[in-house]
Amino acid sequence: MNGTDHLDPLLFGEIDPPQRLLMGPGPVNAHPRVLRAMSADLLGQFDPEMTGYMNQVMALYRPVFGTGNRWTMLIDGTARAAIEASLVSLVAPGDRVLVVNFGRFGLLLIEILTRIGAVVETVEVPWGEVVPLDAIAEAIARTGPRVVATVHGDTSTTMAQPLEGLGALCRAAGALAYTDATATLGGMEIAADRWGVDVVTGGLQKCLGGPSGSAPITISDAAAAHIFSRRHVEKGIRGDANIDGVGPRIASNYFDLAMIMDYWSEARLNHHTEATSMLYAARECARVALGEGLDARFARHAAAGRAVTAGLRAMGLTVFGDDAHRMTNVTGVYIPDGVDGERVRAAMRDHFEIEIGTAFGPLVGRIWRIGAMGYNAMKHKVLLTLGALEACLLAEGFSLPAGEAVKAALAAWDA
Amino acid sequence: MNGTDHLDPLLFGEIDPPQRLLMGPGPVNAHPRVLRAMSADLLGQFDPEMTGYMNQVMALYRPVFGTGNRWTMLIDGTARAAIEASLVSLVAPGDRVLVVNFGRFGLLLIEILTRIGAVVETVEVPWGEVVPLDAIAEAIARTGPRVVATVHGDTSTTMAQPLEGLGALCRAAGALAYTDATATLGGMEIAADRWGVDVVTGGLQKCLGGPSGSAPITISDAAAAHIFSRRHVEKGIRGDANIDGVGPRIASNYFDLAMIMDYWSEARLNHHTEATSMLYAARECARVALGEGLDARFARHAAAGRAVTAGLRAMGLTVFGDDAHRMTNVTGVYIPDGVDGERVRAAMRDHFEIEIGTAFGPLVGRIWRIGAMGYNAMKHKVLLTLGALEACLLAEGFSLPAGEAVKAALAAWDA
Repeated sequence: MNGTDHLDPLLFGEIDPPQRLLMGPGPVNAHPRVLRAMSADLLGQFDPEMTGYMNQVMALYRPVFGTGNRWTMLIDGTARAAIEASLVSLVAPGDRVLVVNFGRFGLLLIEILTRIGAVVETVEVPWGEVVPLDAIAEAIARTGPRVVATVHGDTSTTMAQPLEGLGALCRAAGALAYTDATATLGGMEIAADRWGVDVVTGGLQKCLGGPSGSAPITISDAAAAHIFSRRHVEKGIRGDANIDGVGPRIASNYFDLAMIMDYWSEARLNHHTEATSMLYAARECARVALGEGLDARFARHAAAGRAVTAGLRAMGLTVFGDDAHRMTNVTGVYIPDGVDGERVRAAMRDHFEIEIGTAFGPLVGRIWRIGAMGYNAMKHKVLLTLGALEACLLAEGFSLPAGEAVKAALAAWDA
Repeated sequence: MNGTDHLDPLLFGEIDPPQRLLMGPGPVNAHPRVLRAMSADLLGQFDPEMTGYMNQVMALYRPVFGTGNRWTMLIDGTARAAIEASLVSLVAPGDRVLVVNFGRFGLLLIEILTRIGAVVETVEVPWGEVVPLDAIAEAIARTGPRVVATVHGDTSTTMAQPLEGLGALCRAAGALAYTDATATLGGMEIAADRWGVDVVTGGLQKCLGGPSGSAPITISDAAAAHIFSRRHVEKGIRGDANIDGVGPRIASNYFDLAMIMDYWSEARLNHHTEATSMLYAARECARVALGEGLDARFARHAAAGRAVTAGLRAMGLTVFGDDAHRMTNVTGVYIPDGVDGERVRAAMRDHFEIEIGTAFGPLVGRIWRIGAMGYNAMKHKVLLTLGALEACLLAEGFSLPAGEAVKAALAAWDA
């Protein structure tokens, strides 16, 4: 039995998705400029115009990551691909790694590291909190890790982990630092150099306002040196490939950052075939972000987060998690007693063409997650979402002070 | 020192690549319908319209792969990503794998398998030949592999490995079969079911006429059962995740086909965030191919291959490799004595905006590779390429009978 057997492929029409407003934890609607950039014609992999665009992408993502790192580029896959590329390239089997775990994406780091064969140590807090820096310092002292891995903004809990000072702790302990900034890159400040984090990765489909499928990454010189020490060049590419390193070989070919850096270097050693249309998208995402100005962009996301929070509270709802460390671009809110969360989500979608998010793990059925990211971190989209949610809650028989949510959000936007 | 430091990202203009005709071994120019499909608005990951499109993609790629396999879907990465996903999911460390190796992409299979920790056996021929079926049978008997891995069309040598009967040999020996059809899918017949090959993977950027960045895959029920026996569900996704298998855990999270099948199944277990724009592209590639008709499409690629070969020979050039097993969509040709291959390629690009391919490994500097794939397997594009090559060879002082190449190609197209 085959759930899609009845479909006749010759009857499928042109792509024509509904024009839905995506106000969940991502993916969100892409900026129209990004969608248009993908329709540009393709180039040969080593054409000078193509390698020129690759170099531009490197330059564009340095400010986005807050870094001067030479090795700032793209991984051809979703955000999760860049996470795995970082960890499998930094960590050899048997290496001790400390994971700063405060949500579902901390669990993902642990599960990827477990597959790599790392010895995983953790420092944890309940979902809805962040890990204090002194707890991280204590855990580093206790475990002596080779690598410290953390998430910046974990959409599962809507918390943003403070990372100021993390790099200094790691350097003092001889550890490299990795941060997954998928959910915040382009929406909250990422300061790879000031934080002292060696490898940071992101995705396009959250605050950068692009489609999933290309994942920006930045790598410090120290991390690059470590990764190059594990380099082994693929056979059949060139005759004189005797630049092999001494460290344990990286367990993945596709995610071997040494080979990917060689591909993005002037040597242009062949690896994968760069995903050209996604590179065009990534380039345009960064052009849009830098054109707006990063500070203005972060302020816009902060205004949207304030407005969402104020609106939800004005409806009498309870916002989830530690107020002091909330991500600006996604807000969790408790589903009120007696209200069926999935019925409300369906009504939002069916009547208003607005998507809000469900939750993971221990929060399933307990909270909704409302995002306002990238092209969707806009005043009118926040107001429309709050107005629609109010209507859907009223239709479910939930009692609330009608009209207050939008009013409160408008006031909070400019606060 | 940083090779891209001098670039000012605020000065980068809109994406505006030259309109170049890509007649190398791929990537090639995408069909305009595919480029336009990518500009459609995005959808939420579990929106019913999104999962509907995912189901359509499953149905569309079954005929493309010549299969009824339920598990026919996309890997979010380049063609190489699907190769690694297949091998890391099928093969556990210590498993014996036989690689049918006749070129650079056979070497790639070996190198990925080595990183996985497989015991790799090979059956080989010189570049430019294919491996006879009885040599494969003998190697299977000799090595007793768990998996037999082969490339279908290896662009490095332009050879297409015959695969009729491979599946029966594998089943008789209790082995699973894997084939990398990146360079032929959509251009030459892929008969996963008739060949009896369990897992076949492709890419969009060759005969399917799309961009690199999404990789179609099909998985037989037998291979799926084997892979599911290694399933371990990620923590934090749902509470009752007790469907773990007994086999050795798959070494990669991103490439864990068990999790990817769960994501494409009705259960829709969260894994990566599907690369929506690339899924739109993959869907449109298959719609274009099935709309043309696969037999007509294969005939068009064969006509293009005949025309390229006839045109090159009419110029007095020597075509590379075993005539009986040449891929239809890419042709190798010896660079004549006294001609600088890279100067000719540069002249083709600079004067005619046409790209032809260089070569890998032992063939570097010895052959060019001329492709005619997907949207570029067209009569006028082949004729324009041959005419331009003739002009560039004449300009280099190479003696040839002017005008004969285009004439011979025209005759061969309809032969």
